[in-house]
Amino acid sequence: MLSDIEIAQSCQMRPIAEVAAAAGLDADDLELYGKYKAKLSTDVWTKLEGHENGKLVLVTAINPTPAGEGKTTTTVGLGQAMAKLGKNAVIALREPSLGPVFGIKGGAAGGGYAQVVPMEDINLHFTGDMHAITAANNLLCAMLDNHMQQGNALGIDPRRVIFTRVMDMNDRSLRNITIGLGGKMNGVPREDHFMITVASEIMAILCLASDLDDLKKRFGDILVAYSYAGKPIFARDLHAEGAMTALMKDAIKPNLVQTLEGTPCLMHGGPFANIAHGCNSVQATKLALKLADIAITEAGFGADLGAEKFLDIKCRKAGLSPDCIVLVATVRALKYNGGVSKAELNAPDLAALERGVCNLDAHLDNMQKFGVPVVVAINSFPTDTEEEVAFIRAHCAKRGVRVALSEVFTKGGEGGKALANEVLAVLDEGKADFHMLYEDSLPLEDKIRRIAKEIYGALGVTIAPAAHKELANITEMGYGHLPVCVAKTQYSLSDDPALLGRPTEFVVNVRTARLAAGAGFVVVETGAIMTMPGLPRVPAAENIDVDREGRITGLF
Amino acid sequence: MLSDIEIAQSCQMRPIAEVAAAAGLDADDLELYGKYKAKLSTDVWTKLEGHENGKLVLVTAINPTPAGEGKTTTTVGLGQAMAKLGKNAVIALREPSLGPVFGIKGGAAGGGYAQVVPMEDINLHFTGDMHAITAANNLLCAMLDNHMQQGNALGIDPRRVIFTRVMDMNDRSLRNITIGLGGKMNGVPREDHFMITVASEIMAILCLASDLDDLKKRFGDILVAYSYAGKPIFARDLHAEGAMTALMKDAIKPNLVQTLEGTPCLMHGGPFANIAHGCNSVQATKLALKLADIAITEAGFGADLGAEKFLDIKCRKAGLSPDCIVLVATVRALKYNGGVSKAELNAPDLAALERGVCNLDAHLDNMQKFGVPVVVAINSFPTDTEEEVAFIRAHCAKRGVRVALSEVFTKGGEGGKALANEVLAVLDEGKADFHMLYEDSLPLEDKIRRIAKEIYGALGVTIAPAAHKELANITEMGYGHLPVCVAKTQYSLSDDPALLGRPTEFVVNVRTARLAAGAGFVVVETGAIMTMPGLPRVPAAENIDVDREGRITGLF
Repeated sequence: MLSDIEIAQSCQMRPIAEVAAAAGLDADDLELYGKYKAKLSTDVWTKLEGHENGKLVLVTAINPTPAGEGKTTTTVGLGQAMAKLGKNAVIALREPSLGPVFGIKGGAAGGGYAQVVPMEDINLHFTGDMHAITAANNLLCAMLDNHMQQGNALGIDPRRVIFTRVMDMNDRSLRNITIGLGGKMNGVPREDHFMITVASEIMAILCLASDLDDLKKRFGDILVAYSYAGKPIFARDLHAEGAMTALMKDAIKPNLVQTLEGTPCLMHGGPFANIAHGCNSVQATKLALKLADIAITEAGFGADLGAEKFLDIKCRKAGLSPDCIVLVATVRALKYNGGVSKAELNAPDLAALERGVCNLDAHLDNMQKFGVPVVVAINSFPTDTEEEVAFIRAHCAKRGVRVALSEVFTKGGEGGKALANEVLAVLDEGKADFHMLYEDSLPLEDKIRRIAKEIYGALGVTIAPAAHKELANITEMGYGHLPVCVAKTQYSLSDDPALLGRPTEFVVNVRTARLAAGAGFVVVETGAIMTMPGLPRVPAAENIDVDREGRITGLF
Repeated sequence: MLSDIEIAQSCQMRPIAEVAAAAGLDADDLELYGKYKAKLSTDVWTKLEGHENGKLVLVTAINPTPAGEGKTTTTVGLGQAMAKLGKNAVIALREPSLGPVFGIKGGAAGGGYAQVVPMEDINLHFTGDMHAITAANNLLCAMLDNHMQQGNALGIDPRRVIFTRVMDMNDRSLRNITIGLGGKMNGVPREDHFMITVASEIMAILCLASDLDDLKKRFGDILVAYSYAGKPIFARDLHAEGAMTALMKDAIKPNLVQTLEGTPCLMHGGPFANIAHGCNSVQATKLALKLADIAITEAGFGADLGAEKFLDIKCRKAGLSPDCIVLVATVRALKYNGGVSKAELNAPDLAALERGVCNLDAHLDNMQKFGVPVVVAINSFPTDTEEEVAFIRAHCAKRGVRVALSEVFTKGGEGGKALANEVLAVLDEGKADFHMLYEDSLPLEDKIRRIAKEIYGALGVTIAPAAHKELANITEMGYGHLPVCVAKTQYSLSDDPALLGRPTEFVVNVRTARLAAGAGFVVVETGAIMTMPGLPRVPAAENIDVDREGRITGLF
């Protein structure tokens, strides 16, 4: 079989204006970025105001292996399959970060015959949204440090700066740095940290903002530091929100691209689900609901991370209510959760699968707590045996859960029809009764405990003294009603990546807490999770090349 | 009079495809970025192969005041005026950096009725070239630090890393930093520095590369560090050049925009002239020569910086030969050079002008050394008196130099006709006899001395021991034939910003030397010049805003 990039490059793309036209949009609604990418003009909202909303399908997954297990691929393939069945479907995805592209994971636009194109553009600069976020984030930081340098009228305590710089890169050397060295002309010395751009509060705000005014208000609300007197300092105190919004005036517009089969895809915003809230923009999802009868969206990593945040944060903020959840499982990932090493995942191992299926159960139990019917998608791999697939099918049948084999990687939309039919059956039944896991009024530490116990299956939670103090401080400042965004490893339901399957005898260790007042949630970091990834021994970047005609190789 | 942004926003732009068509390009030659910006496809070169080159006009200036004196405005206005006179002119400019936009200088797309539009887009993200450069630069840095972290097979000495990270921001706190702190998992601790993106060697390479292959070769040639054994380590040793080129595959294509009067403008690449080589891309200039009878380009800051580098670096590398130089002078800047403080520049002061005109003389003498005829453009300001303007005219007449008043700021192309006619007269005469200031074979330190004495008017040069050692090392490695790119303050002909007019009793102090093997020159830093600017007490960013319709205010 051809590589992802070879398949993508051999695809005859339709001009994006045609794709838009098929979705009911005309040339005036588009701001073209080349022939195959466009941003949607803000006027689109007025035009679509009267449209009824379609149904909302969320695609999530069990805990992944380090290689990723094809959740985006399944989402794209499901959209393609819906089109093949004559349905009006629109996909809403996150846009990729350069970090994983040059690191270990490769691209993030699907795989095989279920990809979003133009694949290279999407995985590199796309329409510049990531760069705009990086610039807006770092402008705020530069203005903050400049304020301290120029007399520090606000009395900002250099030991208590909350808001950090970001870069869209896997660069562990920037995790812990000291800045402002070299004497009086070169800034105020202090400790700083770079996060990867997708963990930035600016990214979260982009994904949650309803319009440009809301974006600006939220930027102003960002907590950047505390003063020596302990007073919170916000971005608006530095008069930064106007320039930040100017930098984001195009980034706020959703991007339109297409699948290999021409299905429209809104790709907008891209926070990671382990260190951030893991969902594409509210605007893109809402647009998809207006444009389509069936809007298919995705949340990052396993359902303990992306789906929990989709349901408890994004749906809460945006008033969304999913009608069906697709839970992607793979034989490989279940075997991995059954204790098989990454190197041996290709060998048949029914016993490991039997041990690992508890991970699927955990996520099924969890999704049921939100009241939304689930369809299990078995994302097919060539190494899967018939026995292994049959085992998962039987397991789901025993639980009374719909299940389908998805072969979209090798067959495109055609290979997703079985899955699409199960999803359509759920939508026809209309049994979703969505509710969130916790009320706003629950105290912050109780929210963390509720998530840890109900979703992760923990015995309880330990909270480091500094985090405990900051959570109390956040509550005292009047933000106790906010939801909680847990930063946690994606490889385990627990905060320890080594605990696979369905761990039970563990506690979740909260290390830090941080108010994201602009985004409207509180971030807590658990275990050893890092907000800036590193590159592996041989970075994917070493194999990426481009020939004299501009044709890229080595992206996957 | 309206502000720059108000004028720009009230302009009825022509669709960029129309502007392109008027210049002989069709839709297939364009990659649209919205309706008013486009990149030119690489196929354009094949199409234009047989075209004769037009004449090349370089616009430069005397030493500026801290506020800038309208060199870009004059360049744009001259292009507009040529069109008004029925000439086929194309402008080739640098693209702006975000640093000055949010710092002190404001936008860099001209001013008044001589601007390039869409002004806001150009001054913010434009087509993403700056961001691509930042990403390619920082990918190389991440791969370098990752190499040291992952066993350091090349034996890179963390004390001898040459290549630094960049950010497109004025952020003095990042000038001197320590990275890799926090223990074994978080990188190798070392000193690092951020430069502003426009000082990056990646930017220089973009501006000097002939095509994608050349770009990749040059990226591979970048000297990044020395090993413990003193061996040079290049980007190719880290296998970084392929991925870096992939990041730059669109950035290498020149951008097409238009003036307020619809004149085509190729805007591509944007190194600062004080800390870098100060010229737009060779590709854009060569395209302008193919497309137009008269190609008008610009080099940054005063002629001691931008023009010297244009003539000694860009023309040398690209085989260009200018036919006419326009030297922009203002009454204000000459008075400033005559010792008047910035606050008092608006008051008439003929005595100060008489004292300051020596600065104009220095630049006229310098340009004559390159054998290219000069036209002085007096960029008119409302505060200029008739006596002041008459004095400059008379002074030029005495020297036998053509001179014209340029009123393009208030009148657009119409106000540039006098200047355009003088330029046309020079082009008709065809007396240019261009030669560079020094031969390749001159030793590096002698090149520095030649520039310092012949152009800056210095008595001589001091070279700090570390710089002396590195220049010897660079020569020993076989790079002694390269031209020299001097980083120096723009406010003085000397390396001391306080020495105005035409200083004589000074030496130039070379602090550091660095090989830019990919760009193909050696950078020396003189005086107290910084490669990362800082923000002022009240950054321009504080006054930038955007309303709910996306209309930006406060950019100027």
